[in-house]
Amino acid sequence: MVNDDSRTPPRRRTGLWFLGARGSVATTATLGALALARGHAPTTGLVSELPDVARAGLVGVDELVVGGHDVAGSIVERAHELAASGVVPAATVAALADDLATVDARVRPGASGTADRATADRLQADIEAFRAEHDLERVVVVDVSSTEPPAPDAHALTLTELERRLDDGTAPLPASSLYAYAAFRAGSPVVCFTPSTGPRIPALEELAKTLHLPWAGRDGKTGETLLKATLAPMFATRALAVRSWSAFNILGGGDGRTLADPAAAASKTATKAMTVEAVLGYPVEGPVRIDHVADLGDWKTAWDHVTFDGFLGTRMRMQVTWEGCDSALAAPLVLDLARLVARAHEVGVTGPVGELGFFFKDPVGSAEHALAAQWQTLTRWCAGLGDAARADGHAGVAPHGAA
Amino acid sequence: MVNDDSRTPPRRRTGLWFLGARGSVATTATLGALALARGHAPTTGLVSELPDVARAGLVGVDELVVGGHDVAGSIVERAHELAASGVVPAATVAALADDLATVDARVRPGASGTADRATADRLQADIEAFRAEHDLERVVVVDVSSTEPPAPDAHALTLTELERRLDDGTAPLPASSLYAYAAFRAGSPVVCFTPSTGPRIPALEELAKTLHLPWAGRDGKTGETLLKATLAPMFATRALAVRSWSAFNILGGGDGRTLADPAAAASKTATKAMTVEAVLGYPVEGPVRIDHVADLGDWKTAWDHVTFDGFLGTRMRMQVTWEGCDSALAAPLVLDLARLVARAHEVGVTGPVGELGFFFKDPVGSAEHALAAQWQTLTRWCAGLGDAARADGHAGVAPHGAA
Amino acid sequence: MVNDDSRTPPRRRTGLWFLGARGSVATTATLGALALARGHAPTTGLVSELPDVARAGLVGVDELVVGGHDVAGSIVERAHELAASGVVPAATVAALADDLATVDARVRPGASGTADRATADRLQADIEAFRAEHDLERVVVVDVSSTEPPAPDAHALTLTELERRLDDGTAPLPASSLYAYAAFRAGSPVVCFTPSTGPRIPALEELAKTLHLPWAGRDGKTGETLLKATLAPMFATRALAVRSWSAFNILGGGDGRTLADPAAAASKTATKAMTVEAVLGYPVEGPVRIDHVADLGDWKTAWDHVTFDGFLGTRMRMQVTWEGCDSALAAPLVLDLARLVARAHEVGVTGPVGELGFFFKDPVGSAEHALAAQWQTLTRWCAGLGDAARADGHAGVAPHGAA
Amino acid sequence: MVNDDSRTPPRRRTGLWFLGARGSVATTATLGALALARGHAPTTGLVSELPDVARAGLVGVDELVVGGHDVAGSIVERAHELAASGVVPAATVAALADDLATVDARVRPGASGTADRATADRLQADIEAFRAEHDLERVVVVDVSSTEPPAPDAHALTLTELERRLDDGTAPLPASSLYAYAAFRAGSPVVCFTPSTGPRIPALEELAKTLHLPWAGRDGKTGETLLKATLAPMFATRALAVRSWSAFNILGGGDGRTLADPAAAASKTATKAMTVEAVLGYPVEGPVRIDHVADLGDWKTAWDHVTFDGFLGTRMRMQVTWEGCDSALAAPLVLDLARLVARAHEVGVTGPVGELGFFFKDPVGSAEHALAAQWQTLTRWCAGLGDAARADGHAGVAPHGAA
Repeated sequence: MVNDDSRTPPRRRTGLWFLGARGSVATTATLGALALARGHAPTTGLVSELPDVARAGLVGVDELVVGGHDVAGSIVERAHELAASGVVPAATVAALADDLATVDARVRPGASGTADRATADRLQADIEAFRAEHDLERVVVVDVSSTEPPAPDAHALTLTELERRLDDGTAPLPASSLYAYAAFRAGSPVVCFTPSTGPRIPALEELAKTLHLPWAGRDGKTGETLLKATLAPMFATRALAVRSWSAFNILGGGDGRTLADPAAAASKTATKAMTVEAVLGYPVEGPVRIDHVADLGDWKTAWDHVTFDGFLGTRMRMQVTWEGCDSALAAPLVLDLARLVARAHEVGVTGPVGELGFFFKDPVGSAEHALAAQWQTLTRWCAGLGDAARADGHAGVAPHGAA
Repeated sequence: MVNDDSRTPPRRRTGLWFLGARGSVATTATLGALALARGHAPTTGLVSELPDVARAGLVGVDELVVGGHDVAGSIVERAHELAASGVVPAATVAALADDLATVDARVRPGASGTADRATADRLQADIEAFRAEHDLERVVVVDVSSTEPPAPDAHALTLTELERRLDDGTAPLPASSLYAYAAFRAGSPVVCFTPSTGPRIPALEELAKTLHLPWAGRDGKTGETLLKATLAPMFATRALAVRSWSAFNILGGGDGRTLADPAAAASKTATKAMTVEAVLGYPVEGPVRIDHVADLGDWKTAWDHVTFDGFLGTRMRMQVTWEGCDSALAAPLVLDLARLVARAHEVGVTGPVGELGFFFKDPVGSAEHALAAQWQTLTRWCAGLGDAARADGHAGVAPHGAA
Repeated sequence: MVNDDSRTPPRRRTGLWFLGARGSVATTATLGALALARGHAPTTGLVSELPDVARAGLVGVDELVVGGHDVAGSIVERAHELAASGVVPAATVAALADDLATVDARVRPGASGTADRATADRLQADIEAFRAEHDLERVVVVDVSSTEPPAPDAHALTLTELERRLDDGTAPLPASSLYAYAAFRAGSPVVCFTPSTGPRIPALEELAKTLHLPWAGRDGKTGETLLKATLAPMFATRALAVRSWSAFNILGGGDGRTLADPAAAASKTATKAMTVEAVLGYPVEGPVRIDHVADLGDWKTAWDHVTFDGFLGTRMRMQVTWEGCDSALAAPLVLDLARLVARAHEVGVTGPVGELGFFFKDPVGSAEHALAAQWQTLTRWCAGLGDAARADGHAGVAPHGAA
Repeated sequence: MVNDDSRTPPRRRTGLWFLGARGSVATTATLGALALARGHAPTTGLVSELPDVARAGLVGVDELVVGGHDVAGSIVERAHELAASGVVPAATVAALADDLATVDARVRPGASGTADRATADRLQADIEAFRAEHDLERVVVVDVSSTEPPAPDAHALTLTELERRLDDGTAPLPASSLYAYAAFRAGSPVVCFTPSTGPRIPALEELAKTLHLPWAGRDGKTGETLLKATLAPMFATRALAVRSWSAFNILGGGDGRTLADPAAAASKTATKAMTVEAVLGYPVEGPVRIDHVADLGDWKTAWDHVTFDGFLGTRMRMQVTWEGCDSALAAPLVLDLARLVARAHEVGVTGPVGELGFFFKDPVGSAEHALAAQWQTLTRWCAGLGDAARADGHAGVAPHGAA
């Protein structure tokens, strides 16, 4: 994290632009990046610091400069709230309050209301100004804002129609997609960490391709789905026949509040429901529920109940309870993805990066949902990126960075 | 399962000789093999029927002929008991009672008392007579008898000393090792499905090598350890720091009764405890307990409680409850292993078959404990075996079968 | 259970008329009553056989004669299905198949469609004919049919209006209330074992009063709510402040299928949600969910997750998983209630019997929801009934039985 | 809590003398009493503030003066440690650090080594000096020190022999009993909050009687046993036959460390094991385990697994997980007991106070283990104490206070 601009300029200053910059996930990620850069925190939870991933030649966490869009609030206040509920250490917040305030000052007002040309231009200009002001090689845009309801109308648009309807002020785009449009236009790769639509419509997939930009998604895999992606392959490779998989989630905080809205929850339960059947290859009944329990704050508890048949049809059961802190689980993955997508951009990867499926509930660009297989795909990809860098005789930097 | 000897002789009639042939696991495996051969049961739970494993060119379940050693009891009675407690379908037992009785008639008295030459010779002769009588290509010996206490004295013997002390009648061998000695002398590969010592002492490892015999072990991975081998890699690849992993098991039945003896339980908890640290690569505190609850019968319940650190040190928890039927989980793996070790023998594999670590808590011949990695190793090995067979133009049979 | 009419007539032959006589609960209760009468089953699960309750002077289980209303199906077939899914012993079903068929032959077609005078008269005549044919002292009508959606319109009716609109054929009565009307008109006490409306509307409460009939309800407390009624008082008397109580239920079978309909589930979640707040006396957030998982068959699993504050605000958690068999939990309570309500009728109790709140989620006639307090109320009441009987010098029978 | 001695003297200044005054439980109780007296904390967790108990006419929490025996350490440091692990609020510790230091200065060195007359005299003198110095009406001695192994030899002593062997310096008394001897000699009632022997030997029971002193015990019921005392009666009153009850506890902290010693754990598992069978009246198999997991700190997790038979023998299961903070659960009960035993002393109660069984795993003076029944006994007793006080026209004080 670079905050003291008078220091010797780092090699690959990289912007990390959050959509929802003052939310819990972005605040935790920002605090963590600052703490890591100062040596105040261990690298626990950071996949990108594991040797098999780090070998890809990633930008340092201390090379990240954070900014973003959001509506209201304050990163500093949010950090204090998170400390009060045990998500982040109070001492770390106290020590880094000034740095958090510096990041907060970079946050620009987000989009609200209609998806028109003027708004798109303004959002794009914000990102470009951030890049210019901080002399950044690139800016990765990461969506960690509130989950939106599904947006079926946006899927029918061509890029040409989208452009025309932005001009008309009638584009049927949800906010996440308008942000993605602006990000691509600003030359930024995009990470969709939520189940919102974002760039996942034909018009924007075409735009990313045209502009030679990588993007990654969808919906970070942090808790129950992580367990499903881990456990379902066990049943598959042991030839045990899963008969039902019921999944119940309770959580508080802002995310819980958003998901108390059935329309928004529909986006989430859709991505949560796909893993088990994708791994097993046959239909498995069972509900997937998300309920808001305000008292839990930023903590979430998932209970999964699985019935399965063994040899000679003997019926058995497994139950799992996962008690995690949503922001603490998501924040390091956000930093991982920013670093990995920045590297993909640097070496000229275009379109959805399927090799990053390890991180997502609904892995765009990949049909693989089993965690261990996703891990192998990821680490092979990272090895390739690292070899490319070494072949060039320049540790961790590709010869002719794309974009 | 071949019981009607007047049928057209199958291609590779293979013996499956159980140590503990009248126990719950062997009875369930025997019943299942009979039921599968008659088309009375689906292949649920049989790893060897999954395409990636079956491609190795394995003997058919209907080519297996079952016999074994045991002390007392009756396979038919045991099968009825298992049906009464819901482990196997009562209708299947009723339909196959005569076939079970045929197998029971092949069971020879096991060893008890001192490990001397005469006993070893008798056990060896039993296996050889079984092979001759049923015209079997080979006999795989599978230990599913009661878990023994650790036997530290046996580890110090050389093969020469072992032979001498068998002659003297003073060999410090536990029964499982005496059986393994006899099996190797009879030219049989061995599968150690329990945590007992079996062939896992230098003298017997040397014997297996000398006789060019494969063997596999140790301690089938059927429940809690299966979960550990599945879940620990998730923590590792997500860079989450596991702080404690507490594991409690309750079970009834014969296995539970045996393990109520602290000496026998010591063998079991030793193999159960190694997985998590082997996968993670750092020490993790937490008890591993096995307790006998007679009321559970053949069912076992495991509760695992895991604490781990996430980003910025945030502490989280996972709990898993596994409610399985011990025999129903173990029996198909026993058939899988018999088929795979028979194939290994056929193609001339010698010594511990590390590629079978997928099946074991304490995988002899391999340092890998992560289930998905073990699965990959297994399926690659099976692919190689299959390719070898095809290269020879003879489906499923290697050119110069060993033994 | 009286099936052999040639036997010496028992003292107090009592009819047990099920609404939903061929459903799982009624079939299990019928089978159990037959088995108990023959000495084929222990009294496990029968509250009415505990000394503190039995002292009330209840009719013997062998004095019950079972009949009922239902639409289609067969008690014998249902019993075989229940045996196949492990709810009842197959041997018991086989031994009592003829007796079950005898009961099945007494089942009359139930109501469907409009609530009019003709239907009411027919239902009433069925009950009266059953009483006459079997020479019964009284017939207790027990509703164990499928849960209905709430029926708000029925609550506004006076008895006079109800009678007029039955004549018109426009009565806004759900089936459960039409049955209750017919039962009261037939002089029968009623037990509402489901959350359906039944007699719980002003018009029918007035009718019961007018006819001096007792009735009891509502919604049998068999699983999760039983736990809530047990555990919530612990928090109350330990001054621990419950902050959230989340309750998730999965079940298969007919009940699960019915409750997959959100309208029917609304009746159930309403009664399930009241216990905790009623005991604690303050609002407690948290979802109450019921989901259908067909694979579970007649089995249901509930997961409750509770957060609470202790001393100095320290936050703690409790989780409970309950894995029960719905019919096996409900059936003995149905027999208990039939015996207790018969006794209430015998001694002239009129209106809702609040002393039976121990059995219900929504105890009509009582504000007490704590299980131990309900138990105390029940056993005091039973002691009083027993004392009355003894004072009369006639074991178990009141001097001037009502009805 | 009285710290400012210049204030108007309160009505009934009462001493609370902790054995183990610098341990987690005593520190949390002390902090809580100070916080309550200053109005810095709610009364959550304090049973003695519930109206049904408070009516007994108890001393105010602000009338308690805390002191005690301990070996080493510091209450202030311990409080900071507890705050760091989330047991108590850091702000409360900071605000009350001076008051905690004042209490710490009153702590006298505890006993270690032989049980002789000189040590007994010194311990007695400490308590008497504390009473005199602070002008206290009485001093209640509460044992919250580390659990000792069972002490079978002490049970054979008569009081005469005990006195003689104290003179000889050969008394076979564990420390907890030597403290109890000294406390009684100082005229103090005693509360045994641990499973250690304490006053529970004939010689000391005789001494308490002779001196007209009340005492209460044994082993505070704070977690798993609280659940057992709550849930076992549910099975009993529903006539469900419990077949097994397995109980596993993991905890860290000092208590966990002590209980990692099998000898000390034996005391604890003995008191933990009695509840279920005492309530149900028949033997129930199943292990009771306590294991030390340092990582859990002051937190403990219990997993209980229960199997039971329902109607027609249908087997069902219940599982409970309890995640609590040991000190936060115990501390308010310690204050409750001090206030209640002080009141018992005031009104002249002598010997074990069975009415306080609500608080204990092994309720001395009572055979009742069901929580709701214990609650009723407690509140009736409190009502009686309150009525006595009112009859005297003097709120909360009995006419002829003992001591």
